This record gives sequence, structure tokens and C-alpha cells, in this order.
Amino acid sequence: MNRDPAERLSPDRAWPVAILGATGAVGQTFVRLLARHPWFRVAEVAASERSVGRRYGDAVRWLEGELPEEIARLQVLTCDPAEVRSPLVFSALDSSVAGSVEESFARAGALVFSNAKNHRMDPDVPLLIAEVNPSHRHLIAEQRRRRGWSGGIVTNPNCAATVAAMALAPLHERFGVRAVTAFTMQAVSGAGYPGVPSLDILANVIPYIADEEEKVERELRKLLGDLRDHSVVPADFAVSAHCNRVPTEHGHMVCMSVRLDSECQPADVITALCEWHGAEESRRLPSAPRPPIVYRAEPDRPQTRRDVWAGGGMSVTVGRVRSDPSGGIKLVALGHNTYRGAAGCSILNAELLVADQSPAGA
Amino acid sequence: MNRDPAERLSPDRAWPVAILGATGAVGQTFVRLLARHPWFRVAEVAASERSVGRRYGDAVRWLEGELPEEIARLQVLTCDPAEVRSPLVFSALDSSVAGSVEESFARAGALVFSNAKNHRMDPDVPLLIAEVNPSHRHLIAEQRRRRGWSGGIVTNPNCAATVAAMALAPLHERFGVRAVTAFTMQAVSGAGYPGVPSLDILANVIPYIADEEEKVERELRKLLGDLRDHSVVPADFAVSAHCNRVPTEHGHMVCMSVRLDSECQPADVITALCEWHGAEESRRLPSAPRPPIVYRAEPDRPQTRRDVWAGGGMSVTVGRVRSDPSGGIKLVALGHNTYRGAAGCSILNAELLVADQSPAGA
Amino acid sequence: MNRDPAERLSPDRAWPVAILGATGAVGQTFVRLLARHPWFRVAEVAASERSVGRRYGDAVRWLEGELPEEIARLQVLTCDPAEVRSPLVFSALDSSVAGSVEESFARAGALVFSNAKNHRMDPDVPLLIAEVNPSHRHLIAEQRRRRGWSGGIVTNPNCAATVAAMALAPLHERFGVRAVTAFTMQAVSGAGYPGVPSLDILANVIPYIADEEEKVERELRKLLGDLRDHSVVPADFAVSAHCNRVPTEHGHMVCMSVRLDSECQPADVITALCEWHGAEESRRLPSAPRPPIVYRAEPDRPQTRRDVWAGGGMSVTVGRVRSDPSGGIKLVALGHNTYRGAAGCSILNAELLVADQSPAGA
Amino acid sequence: MNRDPAERLSPDRAWPVAILGATGAVGQTFVRLLARHPWFRVAEVAASERSVGRRYGDAVRWLEGELPEEIARLQVLTCDPAEVRSPLVFSALDSSVAGSVEESFARAGALVFSNAKNHRMDPDVPLLIAEVNPSHRHLIAEQRRRRGWSGGIVTNPNCAATVAAMALAPLHERFGVRAVTAFTMQAVSGAGYPGVPSLDILANVIPYIADEEEKVERELRKLLGDLRDHSVVPADFAVSAHCNRVPTEHGHMVCMSVRLDSECQPADVITALCEWHGAEESRRLPSAPRPPIVYRAEPDRPQTRRDVWAGGGMSVTVGRVRSDPSGGIKLVALGHNTYRGAAGCSILNAELLVADQSPAGA
Repeated sequence: MNRDPAERLSPDRAWPVAILGATGAVGQTFVRLLARHPWFRVAEVAASERSVGRRYGDAVRWLEGELPEEIARLQVLTCDPAEVRSPLVFSALDSSVAGSVEESFARAGALVFSNAKNHRMDPDVPLLIAEVNPSHRHLIAEQRRRRGWSGGIVTNPNCAATVAAMALAPLHERFGVRAVTAFTMQAVSGAGYPGVPSLDILANVIPYIADEEEKVERELRKLLGDLRDHSVVPADFAVSAHCNRVPTEHGHMVCMSVRLDSECQPADVITALCEWHGAEESRRLPSAPRPPIVYRAEPDRPQTRRDVWAGGGMSVTVGRVRSDPSGGIKLVALGHNTYRGAAGCSILNAELLVADQSPAGA
Repeated sequence: MNRDPAERLSPDRAWPVAILGATGAVGQTFVRLLARHPWFRVAEVAASERSVGRRYGDAVRWLEGELPEEIARLQVLTCDPAEVRSPLVFSALDSSVAGSVEESFARAGALVFSNAKNHRMDPDVPLLIAEVNPSHRHLIAEQRRRRGWSGGIVTNPNCAATVAAMALAPLHERFGVRAVTAFTMQAVSGAGYPGVPSLDILANVIPYIADEEEKVERELRKLLGDLRDHSVVPADFAVSAHCNRVPTEHGHMVCMSVRLDSECQPADVITALCEWHGAEESRRLPSAPRPPIVYRAEPDRPQTRRDVWAGGGMSVTVGRVRSDPSGGIKLVALGHNTYRGAAGCSILNAELLVADQSPAGA
Repeated sequence: MNRDPAERLSPDRAWPVAILGATGAVGQTFVRLLARHPWFRVAEVAASERSVGRRYGDAVRWLEGELPEEIARLQVLTCDPAEVRSPLVFSALDSSVAGSVEESFARAGALVFSNAKNHRMDPDVPLLIAEVNPSHRHLIAEQRRRRGWSGGIVTNPNCAATVAAMALAPLHERFGVRAVTAFTMQAVSGAGYPGVPSLDILANVIPYIADEEEKVERELRKLLGDLRDHSVVPADFAVSAHCNRVPTEHGHMVCMSVRLDSECQPADVITALCEWHGAEESRRLPSAPRPPIVYRAEPDRPQTRRDVWAGGGMSVTVGRVRSDPSGGIKLVALGHNTYRGAAGCSILNAELLVADQSPAGA
Repeated sequence: MNRDPAERLSPDRAWPVAILGATGAVGQTFVRLLARHPWFRVAEVAASERSVGRRYGDAVRWLEGELPEEIARLQVLTCDPAEVRSPLVFSALDSSVAGSVEESFARAGALVFSNAKNHRMDPDVPLLIAEVNPSHRHLIAEQRRRRGWSGGIVTNPNCAATVAAMALAPLHERFGVRAVTAFTMQAVSGAGYPGVPSLDILANVIPYIADEEEKVERELRKLLGDLRDHSVVPADFAVSAHCNRVPTEHGHMVCMSVRLDSECQPADVITALCEWHGAEESRRLPSAPRPPIVYRAEPDRPQTRRDVWAGGGMSVTVGRVRSDPSGGIKLVALGHNTYRGAAGCSILNAELLVADQSPAGA
């Protein structure tokens, strides 16, 4: 199989893709989202030794909806580029193993779209949201040059950071963000499966998610940073994050106090949110929600259970835009953590890179 | 019955007290907390017309634990000082009626301890937490002078503001607070009964509670303000509040980013929290928890369900003290909203005022 | 407007329909399900005095999904046949008013499809599930004769009874049911809005729903009874129901111990369930799910949250078919209470009656 | 250390006891319940290899309340009678290892009180609830004779079976039980920790708990059976169980349809429940709740969250006693699964056996 994405990536026909870590919660979300994808076809699934060699439908504890029969019957492969040959690889691997496995695939020529934290902050690895910072994808050229790879690694951010970044992007573009205090209320599906024990979270709140605040604080600045001379200059604002686990199924809510460079009223912010359609390159991609941000004017929206599926789980819903007594504005953003914040974001990134290869692309 | 608290208020024997709005959720909490109180005895219960004349045990839809028989058999009275004669009155009235009813009792000579928002921000009405700002009780003299009342009104703050104020008091005393951003996750019992419909909150988060953010923002500054020349000078810091309803039963959690006047490390803040025992006047009151603040060092505490009953529901549990990338510190505080944040706070305030009248008092 | 259904009811073009009690939870479900219905068009909405005269979108507290704009702009009418003129009327009225209002519409010539309990057990009123007992619709002729009405009333059963009846129908047809013990675990949406207070049900079970067990016990026997000589002879088996409220959003689960007339094994029962496609007349109706019963072989299915949307919320999922040590079999059935168990069932009944009028019908 | 219980077991002073499996959820409940026990003192804690050698307070992930300091500092031992020397041993071991470990302790002379299922149905092992069938403890003599042990094994039943047995005991004694259909709604703490993943149970019901229905069906008959000639003749009635997991924290609710040998009215059953105080031998034991059954007359009680702590978690609350249309009666019982249904039941059994050795005993 030809591994050169420059030659092979084209949306003219469905591209064979592989999913690494396919039996986990995020892996399953990839299966769900790719099952009827217009450009991609799940050709290979790979997972840990326990599952290797088994029929995917037997190896997986399927959590939600119907498992498509054509994927159920795939045989689970080892997470090894000698065995998994698709040119596009979606990685839902745990961070304990993702680092080196993803590198081995990139070295072998595959384009890897990773949900793991391992490479997100590498200077030559794009941390990418198609609507927000598509230009960062060009870091791939630098990555290949430096590392001598024919493939590459593209990462998408932490799920809570993704929701926050989508809501902040239009404000940063128009007004300039100076400081952000972000407070999250995150659903249990963000911890994977089995994840959070029910005894820990039923009718409870846990104001702690290991390493999560650090991720939000550093990733937001890279996401909204500028690509200059083959590297990303982080956005020049402070981020303070408070991350909490709450008893909801899907959907991360982020309440933010945002200081802006220019003085502006809530109405200006609402206009900016409503007029934002994401970067030009992202608009015609098949998984791009229209609009990327759904603005709700009701005083009590967004709500986790009621708004999580906006845009098929790919839109971020924003509401409660109001003045902050400390200056700046307050708002609330909500997004689906395993769709928008994980697998869906990866797929959109893959579409963005594939579109580059095609005259029909954006 | 003599209404002069100066003559009659003494902890030597149990004082007859009345509860206004006794059938509601907060009213019931008063009943629970006063049932075995060493200084007070529930002599009268009053409620709306629907309940008047009925046996309390028949009129109430009792929500939690056992209803004490001696209170169950009280006849429900009208909320009118002509009928309710106790010198100490606890008001759990809804704000739609609390304003004028509480005034009528104060005018008639009763000391009213109110949970309602109506008079909290009146310049001559103490907004009181016994451990935090006991000196503010002296506003009562000014209140009597201005209004010509023989009784008076003492208010306790909004439930979320109470939790925040308890955690901030030791920091304000020692370091000076310059700015606070407070995010709350509030339990459904905070909305009373029937309160929040289950369809609205099961596996959901609602990032809105009517008028709550305004209360937290203005009450915190009065609470931590200074009494000077018969009035309270609000503390000179900005407060920004984000209030959320989450599917927990009891317990309001408040995550805070706090800027302090003097630079200090998390370890200094922890020391300040652990060494704080509340104002001297409050320490020997029967409902004062020891310690008022429980500090937890575990990374994932406090948790709503696991820490809400600390100090019998009267302590505030604080944890996760850490540096804030924007400067200052971050921490998490949790308190029981209907105990510490409502009825329990009122009772502690009443104990404080009663103790003033007695040589045996603090 | 011509009220004669015999002349006017035809699926050739969309039929104007009215919804009574349109602002409540079941009323909103009607709106959702009728918004893109191929045969029906919501022409009129009616509700209580509080809402009359207002735009529907302003009068309703919309609970779920998007409110279609063309319905949002309808003006809310009084529940009076002098004002509401559609020939087909869906009633989501509360039982406290449904009885006489529905009669007035039937008298005025409308065909009323009612979710209320008031007329369900009237001997001349069909208690109808299109897949289960479509022949009972012929009671309408008797009803008109007796009451001198040009319209008529068709009822659908209690939501829990509907789920149980769907699962029992294939067994009763093939083996004969001799006795049923039914235990339900019912979602909060079954109580309407605001319905169950969250303080009552968060992390709790309430083993009581007013009047529910009686409804299940009597309605099941009428549903599975035989139409003979213009009346329904109730099925000759005993039903014992235990009804419980649990903290789930949508979906009523019914665990049943069923004794059958003929001895049979779980495998026979499974075959009967899988081969059952509902009554012939129901199969081509637009809202009929295919299949009406989804059989799941996994040991831990159906589950409320994971199976409630089977067949778009119109299928009943059955699983855990096993032998009962007391004789007979045990099984578990699950259905969506406001779709399959309320509004969806009404709409299917209306389709059944409309199809009778049309050469193109089933 | 002398292992002969006949010589050493006496409530005159606190007896040293050991807990096997002390770090798990049931093990922790033992710690909580034994922390201030008048007769017993936790002298030793043992657990799996992972924890051996560590301080208990460091090895355990403590789930609820405060861990007593004197137990926190115990060193965790291996589950081996060569190392653990207390004459009384409480076993919270998982059934995968409990069988042989418990035997080794009994052989070495310890009296083992086990929560595991392994030996419950052995003909010479008592399956014991102190209030219900205390005479079954005499099987120990037979067990020692047959097996040549100086110690012995006493088991307590499955948590759901315990709740059902408590409610049925007074009815079986007075009227004779002929058949039981039991439907359970069980809390997540019944599955231990981490136990049920939150993604599986939030706002969901799972109508399946592995092997649970079989346990309830067989254990109930042994519990209510008669001891004759050194063996238990199972009660002669059929039991059919439906077991469900629901999103509650603690408390198993059991709805039952019960047929009785003699015809009787709900009022007779209520009298029997209220007049029952448990077997004579059990009444003065320190952990015996008074009364063992709390009868509630309200139509909507017992409720899981509101009644689970009746009698300090050791009483079973019964309500909703009513006629069953199929004959017999229906009722609802609720008990705390880890107190009454597990650790508390074991401790009560130990008290019963210790009391036998003492002149001061019952």
C-alpha cells in the first residue's frame, strides 16, 4: 500500500483509514462517526494484545447505538505499522502508549491524527482545530524536515480546551483576548470506559481531573497562537482553569470570564459569535457543523443534556454573554466531549489535510 | 409576653422561638436544627393561609428524617405579630412576602433572623455570619434608632455567598483580598421544594440561577466590609460570580480564583485556613462548628456528597489550594446550603445576639 | 370546515389536526412528532386560559429539541369545539378536565385521540394500540350509535400498560397468557412537567405512582381482550402491577413474570417475539416502527438510556427471556413513555382510522 | 494466641477481630461499623498482595466518612492464618478467593463470618440472620464434626436476599409463605468499588446483575427453612427474583408479591410486621436495631434515599402493604445493602455466637 499522502490522499473515493485503540470509548466514537463518512472507510482496527486476533464485534464492549456490521467483522490488528497499512490513522490510544506508537506510524509514512496528549505541545506538531487554526497544519512540513518522516502527526486538543477555544476564537480574532478564567463541568464520558466509578460521581461533584487544568491552560495558548517561521508563537494571554467532574453523560460545559484588549459590550461579543463561521478552509469539509457556534439567547442556556447534540454533536453552543464586574465579559460554552472534543475533531482535521491534496478541496 | 430582648434574651433557660414559613424546605431545616437546641425551643410555627389552623405535622410535606412529635402537634399560625408572640423569630419566608412581614415583627418588638434577600443590603441591617463579621450586629442599634423599632432584623447571606465568605474571611484578614472570581455548583435543595423539576436537572447542568450571581457579587463585599460610624463600608475588591445548578442533593461548591494584596504561596494560605477559628465572639456558641473550616489536603477534595456533612453540616470544607497562573491562588470551598448556608447560619446569629444579653455569653 | 371524517379523512393530502393541552409535556411531544408528519399538519393548538391568545412559541416552556417555527407562530386557542375546528384532535389534556372537553369535541364531530384516563374503560370507547388490537376501533360505530355523536373518542392506554401490552401481545396470541406480575421502573417524564421534584428523585426510588397500578391492571386486560358483539370481553388473566419511579429521563421498563396457557420454553417465546410484526392493518402506517418489538439477546439488555430510542422511540425492546422458577417465563420490556406510550401511540391510532377511509390505506 | 472460641469468646472485654479483604468497599464498611464496637476491636487487617506491608491508611482508597486513626495505622497483613491470629475473622473477600482462604482460617481455629457466596449453600454451613434464623448457628457443631475443624464458617446471605428475608420472616412465622415474586432495585454500592462504571448507570437502569437472581431464589429458602437433625430443610415455597441495578448510592429495594398459606388481609400483615421483634436471642445484641422492621404507613414509603439509614442502617423499612389482585399481598421492603445486607449482618452474627459463650449473653 502506498503510504505517500501527497499522492494518495484524495476525496475522490473513500480512503482506507485505521483506528488505533479502537475498542475504547474514544475508539468507538471514531467507529460511529466514520461508519457513514463520505471520504473515509474504516479498513483496519487495532487495539491492545487482549483484543488482537478477535473479531472487533466480539472484542469490544459496545457502549452506544448500533455497531455497524461491516466494522464488527473486522479482525483486530496489533498497533504496529508493519501490520496496519492505511495511509490515514486515527489514534485513540491511551497516553501511556500513544507516544512511541504514533511516532512509529508517522515514521512509516502514515498521517496520524491523535487524541493523546503526548505530542500536543511538541513545537513541530500541529495542535489543530480545523475552524480555529487551520494554518497550523503547515507545521507538518517542518515536522517531516526535522524528523525525517514521510508521514506525520497531527493532534487535536484536550476536550475541554477544544470547547473553550471554539468560543474564544471569534473573540480573539475580533477583539484580542487578554486573560481567561475558565471553569469546567465535565461529563463522565470524558474519562473513558470504565472511567469514573458510579460510587464516586452519583449526586456528587469532584473538583479535580488529573492533569486537566494544566492541559487547558497550555493548549489554549498554542491553539490561538500564530504560526510564524515554522513555529507557533503562543497567544499572549494568561489562562487559569478550574476543572470539575459532574454527573452528566456527555458534554463539557465551560464558564469563562474573559478580558479583551478592546473594550466591548455583550452585544458586540454576541455579534462576533453569530458572525463567525470558522476559517475559510474548514467550511466545506463534510464534518464541519454549520454554524460552528450556535448562539442561544435564553437566560438558562446552554444546558448540558439539552444542547450537547447541537450540530450533530459538532457545534459548540454559547450563551449567557454578559458583562463581568471585574471587567470584560462572562459567557458559557458547551460542546460534546467525545464528538467535538475528541474523535470528531480528529476527523475534521483529517478532512482538512485531505482537502489540501485535492483540486476539489476547500 | 415581654418582647424586649434586652431583658428577656438569656441562655439560662430555653427561649421560645417562632418559625415563619415553617412548612417550606428552609422552614423544615429550622425545625430539624432547633429540635434539640440547648438555648431555643420551637414554641410557634407560622405559614401561609393554606396551612393556618392545621396541625404542623399535617400541613407539612416532611422531606427528610423524622419530624419531632412535639413540633408536629403545634398548630400553624398566621405570619402576624399579633398572633405569633415569641421574642425570637426565624424567617424562612419567600422574598415575595418577607419584606413587610419581617418589618411588622421587628416593629412589634421581635428580633427577626431572616434568610430572605429583601433587607440584606439595607444600610442599617446586619448581613451576618457569626464567625466572619460579628461586629456588624451592632448595626441593630442604628436600625432601631432610625426606624423607631424595639425589635430588629438580622439577615444571613445567600447560601453560596456564605460558603465563599467563610473561605475568604481568613485570607482577607491575613493577606487582604483584591479580586475574586467565584464559580458555583449548587445543589437542588437550594431551590426549595418542589423547586427544580427533575426533568430539568437529571444528568444535566443549568448555568443559571435567577438573581444569584448578583447576590454573591454584592453580599460578599458587605460581609467582608468594615463597620465604621454606624455603617458598613464594603470591602474594596471586585467579585465576579458564575452560578450553576448541578444534580446534587445538598451542598454548594464554590471554585475561586483569588487575588491577594500581598504575595503569598499556597502553603501560606493553607496555614491561614487551618489557623482560623472564627471571630472570638462566635467560638463558644452552641451551633458553632469546630473548626469552622475543615482543610482537606487530598487532591480531589472537597466533594459535594462526601464533605457536605462536615461539622454536622456547619463547617465549610476547603481544599485544592494552588497557585493561579493569572496570579493569586485557586481553591475550592464546599458548604451545606440549607444548614451552613441558611437555617444554621440564622440560628448561629441568634445565638450570637442572645449571648450579648447574658453574663454567661461569649 | 367539514367535520365528517368519512368524507374528509384521507391521506391524499395533509390533514389539519389540533392539539389540546399543547403546552404540556405530552402536548409538546405531539408537536415534535407531528412536525414532519406525512399525513397530518398541526393547524391548531389549544391550551388553558393562561395561554389562550398568545403565540404558541411564547406560551410554551419548550423542553426538548427545536420548536418548529411554523408551529411556534400559531395562536393558542381555547379548548372549545366552537373555536378549534380540525376534524382530527389529539388530546394531551389533564384528566381533571379531559372528560367533558373530549366529549364536547366528539359531539361536535371531531375524532378525538386521547391520552387521558377518563374514557379508557368506557365500554363503547376503544382502548387502542394499532399493532395490538386494531379491531377494537370498530367500537366507534357503537359509540356513535349510543351517544348520537358524529365524531368519536379513541383512547390509548397508560404508558406503562402500553409497553407491557406490546410485549405480551405476541405471547397471548400464540400461547395464551394466564397470569402476569408486572414490575415497572418509570422515568420522570411520565409525570409531565414540572412533574417530579428533583429533591424527591435524585439518587432515589419512589415505589409509588398514584393510581398507576390500577391502570396497568385493568387496561392490560381490555387491551388484550376480544371484540364480540359491539363490546370488549376482557382477557381472562390476572394482572398484578408494582409501579416505581426511578431517576431516568425517558423510558418505562417493565419486568414481568408471565404464566402461559401452554407450556413453552424461553426459545419459543423468543421466536414468538421475533416473528411478531403487529396486526396486518398497522404495518404500513407511517408511524409504525419496523419491527414493533426489538429483541435483544445480550444478558443485560434492554437498558433504559441505551434502548429507549429504538425504532425512533416507537419500538418496544424486549430481552432477558428466561424461565421463571414459579412456572412460566420472565422477561424485561422497555419503551419510550411519551413516544410509544403516549403521543406516538395516539398518532398511530389516528393513522389507523384515517387509513380506513382511504383506498390507499392499509 | 488461643484460638478456642469456646474458651476465649466473651463480651467481658473487647475481642480482637480481623478483617480479610479490608481495603474493599465491604471491608471498609466493617472498619466503620467496628470502629466503636462495644465487644470487638479491630486488631488486624488483611488484604491482597498489592496492599500487604503498607499502612492501612495508605493502602486503602477510603470512600466514606472518616477513617479512624487507630485503624489507619495498622499494617496490612496477608490473608493467611499463619499471620492473622484473631479468633474472630470477618471476611469481605471476593468470591474468587474466599472459598479456600476462609476454610484455612476455620481449620486453624478461627470463627469466620463471611460475606462471600462460596460456602452459603454448603449443608453444614449456617446461612444466618440473627433475627431470622438464629437456631441455624448450631450447624457449626455439625460442620466441625464433619470437617474436623476447631473453628468454623458462618455466612450471611446476599444483600438483596437479606432485605427480602427480614420482611418475609414475620409473615412466614405467622401465616406461612407459599410463593414469592421478588423484584429488586439495587444501589451501586452493592457492586463494590470501583464497581459499576458511571457511564453504565447514570440516568439508566440495568435489569441484570450477574448470578444475583439465583442467589436470592436459593438463599431465601434456606434462610426461612427449618433446622432438623443437623441440617436445614429449605422452606417449601417457590421464589422468583428479578434483579435490577438503579442509580442510587446505598439501599436495596425489594417489591414483593407474596402468597400466604392462610388467607389474610393487609391489616393482618401490617400487625405481624409491627409486632415482630426478631428472634429472642437477637434482641439484646449490641448491633440489633430496635425495631428490626420499621413499618411506614405513608403511601409512598419506603424510599431508598430517605429510609436507607433507618435504625442506623440496620433496620429494614417496609411499606405499601396491599392486596395483590392475583391473591396474597404486595409490599415493598428496603434495607441498607452494605450495613444490614453485608458487614452489619456479619457483625450481628458474630455477636450472636459470642453471646452463646457468655453468661451475660442473650
